[in-house]
Amino acid sequence: MSGKLIVFEGVEGGGKTTQLKRCSNWLRSGGLQDCLGTLAQTIPLVVTREPGGTLLGTKVRQLLLDKDSSPIHPRAELLLYAADRAEHVEELIKPQLVNGAIILCDRYTDSTIAYQGYGRGIDLKLIEQLNQIATAGLESDLTLWLDIDVEIGLERARQRGKVDRMEQANLAFHRRVQQGFQQLYQQNPDRMVRVDASYSEEEVHNSIQKIFRERLRTWFQEPSILS
Amino acid sequence: MSGKLIVFEGVEGGGKTTQLKRCSNWLRSGGLQDCLGTLAQTIPLVVTREPGGTLLGTKVRQLLLDKDSSPIHPRAELLLYAADRAEHVEELIKPQLVNGAIILCDRYTDSTIAYQGYGRGIDLKLIEQLNQIATAGLESDLTLWLDIDVEIGLERARQRGKVDRMEQANLAFHRRVQQGFQQLYQQNPDRMVRVDASYSEEEVHNSIQKIFRERLRTWFQEPSILS
Repeated sequence: MSGKLIVFEGVEGGGKTTQLKRCSNWLRSGGLQDCLGTLAQTIPLVVTREPGGTLLGTKVRQLLLDKDSSPIHPRAELLLYAADRAEHVEELIKPQLVNGAIILCDRYTDSTIAYQGYGRGIDLKLIEQLNQIATAGLESDLTLWLDIDVEIGLERARQRGKVDRMEQANLAFHRRVQQGFQQLYQQNPDRMVRVDASYSEEEVHNSIQKIFRERLRTWFQEPSILS
Repeated sequence: MSGKLIVFEGVEGGGKTTQLKRCSNWLRSGGLQDCLGTLAQTIPLVVTREPGGTLLGTKVRQLLLDKDSSPIHPRAELLLYAADRAEHVEELIKPQLVNGAIILCDRYTDSTIAYQGYGRGIDLKLIEQLNQIATAGLESDLTLWLDIDVEIGLERARQRGKVDRMEQANLAFHRRVQQGFQQLYQQNPDRMVRVDASYSEEEVHNSIQKIFRERLRTWFQEPSILS
């Protein structure tokens, strides 16, 4: 599989979705060519998200984030996320990686560990077991952790008017989630890069550009330099 | 948990759903009192099914059995069934068992092993792992395996005009499913009882009545005889 899976992670209000969109706009409108020259023309760019990256996923996402429905049991919720992920990995991510694409994905396995494991207190081994089942072992090539203070993040999310089921949960919950991302970052220094998301949207975007320039060249150009 | 979970299992066309309904009608209209006397008044009777025994389950069931949607990846399907089951166990089965109910359930863990494991060839250990996660180890007290020849069963299902996504699959698939139920029956001689479903609806109902009379007395009356 010659493509690359790049995941945007973090607590609410860190600008994940905004930054992912800016990043894809930049890559599409010349950024990819800036980094890789003519090679850029051969590399498809795919933007996706979890939950909801497939047709099944869209329906599962509706079930998970529906504000009007009664609370779902934590184990059932975990299994729904895993179902969405299995479909996403098999129907979209794997075929696109085979196709050589750069995939930008809004949330992946780390969110499940942080939210369901650290946040809701579901056994971490169980979650890792389910992540393994859902992905068949497929990890991201790079995960950008958009790190923001939990209170600032939630305030931003509120101002944005976007308050979904996840965001209605309390502050202590979000602090535990944050701690989860911190732990994951420490455990995966190669795969995960921390981005300080307390800066302005512009500054964060510039940091992300810098990371992309470096990684894309390493991934896609080094072999041709050596040859 | 003082209640009892009784599951109806088997391949398509074996009369599971019909027999479950007849059985519940019989129990409600005097059968339970016949078996247990005045004690019957204190025992709630609950009828449910998988997938679809809860509000979430109804929605998951729609996803799983929707004829118009594109095929779902086998691993994703398995995880959806598990999500439905986790919700069902926690929101309905466990509380009702605590409540002392007799629960009649159309399909449970054995169907997943037979259909997804034997039928679709998904790793049996993976399925058992997921059944364990979904049920938190809760097994049925009694499983009635309505055993019917696969070809006769499918012909009955066709005549009934009920052809859903499961039934559209081919004969070889259903033979493997049947083999799965056979294996499960051999491995669980205490929990599973085989009912020959090739007889008439009336005769099958009578066989099931006989099993219920025996079990209900054993479960609910023996302690009072001893006291």
